[in-house]
Amino acid sequence: MDYGKLFFCGFDDFNDEVVEIIEKYSPAGILIYPGLLSKEYLFLDFLNFLSKKGKFLVSSDHEGGQLEVLKYIPSSPGNLSLGRVDSSYTEKYCELSGKIMNVLGFNMVFAPVLDLFFKGSAPVVDLRSFGSDPKLVAQHGLKACSGYLRSGVFPCVKHYPGHGRAKKDSHYELPEVDATLEELWETDLYPFRRVLEEVKDATVMTAHIRYPKIDDLPATLSKVLIKDILRERIGFKGLVVSDAMEMKAISANFSVEEIVKLFFQAGGNMILLSDYRNLPVYYETLKRLVKDEEIEKDVLERSVKIVEEYLRKAKFSGGFGFLSEVSEKALLFKEDVSLSNEEEVVVLVPSSENLSPADLTGLDYDEIPKVVSRFFKVKEVIRYNVTKGPEKKVENGLILDFVVNASMNEEALKAHLELPAEKTTYFVIRNPSDWKHFKDRRFVVTLSTKPLSIYKALRHLVGRCDA
Amino acid sequence: MDYGKLFFCGFDDFNDEVVEIIEKYSPAGILIYPGLLSKEYLFLDFLNFLSKKGKFLVSSDHEGGQLEVLKYIPSSPGNLSLGRVDSSYTEKYCELSGKIMNVLGFNMVFAPVLDLFFKGSAPVVDLRSFGSDPKLVAQHGLKACSGYLRSGVFPCVKHYPGHGRAKKDSHYELPEVDATLEELWETDLYPFRRVLEEVKDATVMTAHIRYPKIDDLPATLSKVLIKDILRERIGFKGLVVSDAMEMKAISANFSVEEIVKLFFQAGGNMILLSDYRNLPVYYETLKRLVKDEEIEKDVLERSVKIVEEYLRKAKFSGGFGFLSEVSEKALLFKEDVSLSNEEEVVVLVPSSENLSPADLTGLDYDEIPKVVSRFFKVKEVIRYNVTKGPEKKVENGLILDFVVNASMNEEALKAHLELPAEKTTYFVIRNPSDWKHFKDRRFVVTLSTKPLSIYKALRHLVGRCDA
Repeated sequence: MDYGKLFFCGFDDFNDEVVEIIEKYSPAGILIYPGLLSKEYLFLDFLNFLSKKGKFLVSSDHEGGQLEVLKYIPSSPGNLSLGRVDSSYTEKYCELSGKIMNVLGFNMVFAPVLDLFFKGSAPVVDLRSFGSDPKLVAQHGLKACSGYLRSGVFPCVKHYPGHGRAKKDSHYELPEVDATLEELWETDLYPFRRVLEEVKDATVMTAHIRYPKIDDLPATLSKVLIKDILRERIGFKGLVVSDAMEMKAISANFSVEEIVKLFFQAGGNMILLSDYRNLPVYYETLKRLVKDEEIEKDVLERSVKIVEEYLRKAKFSGGFGFLSEVSEKALLFKEDVSLSNEEEVVVLVPSSENLSPADLTGLDYDEIPKVVSRFFKVKEVIRYNVTKGPEKKVENGLILDFVVNASMNEEALKAHLELPAEKTTYFVIRNPSDWKHFKDRRFVVTLSTKPLSIYKALRHLVGRCDA
Repeated sequence: MDYGKLFFCGFDDFNDEVVEIIEKYSPAGILIYPGLLSKEYLFLDFLNFLSKKGKFLVSSDHEGGQLEVLKYIPSSPGNLSLGRVDSSYTEKYCELSGKIMNVLGFNMVFAPVLDLFFKGSAPVVDLRSFGSDPKLVAQHGLKACSGYLRSGVFPCVKHYPGHGRAKKDSHYELPEVDATLEELWETDLYPFRRVLEEVKDATVMTAHIRYPKIDDLPATLSKVLIKDILRERIGFKGLVVSDAMEMKAISANFSVEEIVKLFFQAGGNMILLSDYRNLPVYYETLKRLVKDEEIEKDVLERSVKIVEEYLRKAKFSGGFGFLSEVSEKALLFKEDVSLSNEEEVVVLVPSSENLSPADLTGLDYDEIPKVVSRFFKVKEVIRYNVTKGPEKKVENGLILDFVVNASMNEEALKAHLELPAEKTTYFVIRNPSDWKHFKDRRFVVTLSTKPLSIYKALRHLVGRCDA
């Protein structure tokens, strides 16, 4: 059985370990975290990698308002504001956001939040709620889902059966809610019922909250709440994802074995892990539990089928990931140039000046040392003046010299060439005319000042990425 | 005649002066500059304003690579890199970028650059060129245009008839290129010819460069280059826009009267002004020249028709501008609350802490004083601890107190309420339960920490925006 289909994993980085884990376990769900989004070159390289590996559900936590992780989408005033205006605005916001997500390579989003706002609740819900009125929240939730779906993005309503009453934050501890099923039915549960009855391709995220009057187990692990109520009484046949299992509400109270066993037996379909490094342990535990007949195989097979159905309907494009191929294919190397990343390096980069009003690359130079530091221990960063070139005194360690327009300035060219030949690797990142002056040296031509091109050049030189 | 149709104006801000100029002169073309994009709340409010005023061509300078102004689009390695790989990558990049532009409310882009790369040229072209080979540049130019058009964005090829040979930057001085028309025809002009023959809905931007072997006047003002060569010999019937007339190459060598007269008589259709503040002078000069019969009216009428044809085909949605309406409609005020922005203010904002891992609003608090400073002279910014509230000693000047979750912390609530009632205006920006505690005071409820909501609240209170 394809156990990878049963996992949704969070990624805050892209490196050799990620490649290994994805190749070995093939998790069907990929959650892109801010740590990856903040290094766009890695985000794009990751998308490109994924696009060669198959088809995935690719999601983010971008809700709009209190929780926004995609700088590519204009900031929303948030659900609490949207809840005060006509729900057509909510639909439009989710449709337009969904379009951008879709262009970027996402086909799922962990939104909308359908939790009700309650006085005195934990600030974890707050602005993320459309309001206190179950009907109003349902109405906005419906429109949000139809907006996302129209743009090719699966919505994931959360946190079933409702997080609003919780006075604690499940990131830190397991909250308890003292309401009965009857009370929840027309309040917290109402938006979930309405949305899941109408929106067939929605997905659901469960809450790590205990409702002792309904079940002893938290919703995420509760057969009563998932199988009996969500599946049977509400009639939802689609995908049920857990909230991240590493959150203290779950991980501090249950073993991996208990989590895996209880979640699937309760009727859940995909375990969300916020840290991909935890996938091997969960995966192997699941496999062992099946072997030991502690989980019925056909329960898992039903889940795999549900996941496959969403994968079949999903658009998965890889977004702008192809730019990482462009950067790589555009590189020119001297054939025998390679570097060992065991050495410390001195990085020479131009100072952050734009060379024309139609040039905004000055800021790119600030990024170069950060990219280098993913591969090398950076001993020193020296900024040089483009018209003068680097000063001569650089003499220790491996030198990575990022050359900009040296051929336009005799003095600068001379200074670049005076660096010790055996220790220096030249990166021609701008003017193609610079190239010929370095052709007897160790050189790489990127003809791009962008982090993605620098990253691709270094990765090629070093042969791997040791982040 | 609708003279406004003949102007494309750059906007780096949105304020009362902008409103006045657009209402009075209705320029058909709107170029959004980084100064506006960096204040997203103004960008969105501007789009919303435009969407009520009619239909516009909305463009940006986002070329990808060396010149990128939209943070909403992943960074491209640039044209010089794209020129080294298959042109299908260029098409894909422009199509995806165009989709995002379109969702954001843009229907035009001042790209692709079709200038050839020449050794020793000014760094103004550099990485913006696809390469040195006219056929290769033409091929990528064609694909770029078809990508943009497929996404509902008019491309604007530039800088006709080719900026590549210029050794100077036209932002600073008027470059001269010593080539004959015969030399240019198969080189610099080749990509323009190929693209404009095939792509009917493209537009063209002219170069501020003099080609003394072709005409004494710079291309932007040259009847030989625009009317005889571009219109008649190449056969281009579409929209011709100037580069920004404030660039020294033009503005230091010609009067406004000469610029206006020569440009339209040469066959140009829209004058680009990088600064909207210059529109009144240009507009009135044009009007006077028509009245004095120094420009033939039917020359202008033909231009207006061309512009109208593009406007007719353009999709103009206002993008995410509607969020500014959401923020405004969601506000709750005490009826009689208003503020005079002649007074200095003390701004109280929480320190930048997120209240939960599912809360990224902490950084919003840093933005609040910047938004306030568009309306008031900010005397002091005091950051307070959410659980403790502001310290009592604030006693001078008008106080704007941005309240977060006061009702959750008794000590904080007490501290907020101890501020002098007659001087303090409370902004309830998060927990709706806070509201009732301030209902006897001057208050505004935004229930959003976002700059757009704060801006809308202040604009409402002050009655205008004095940026």
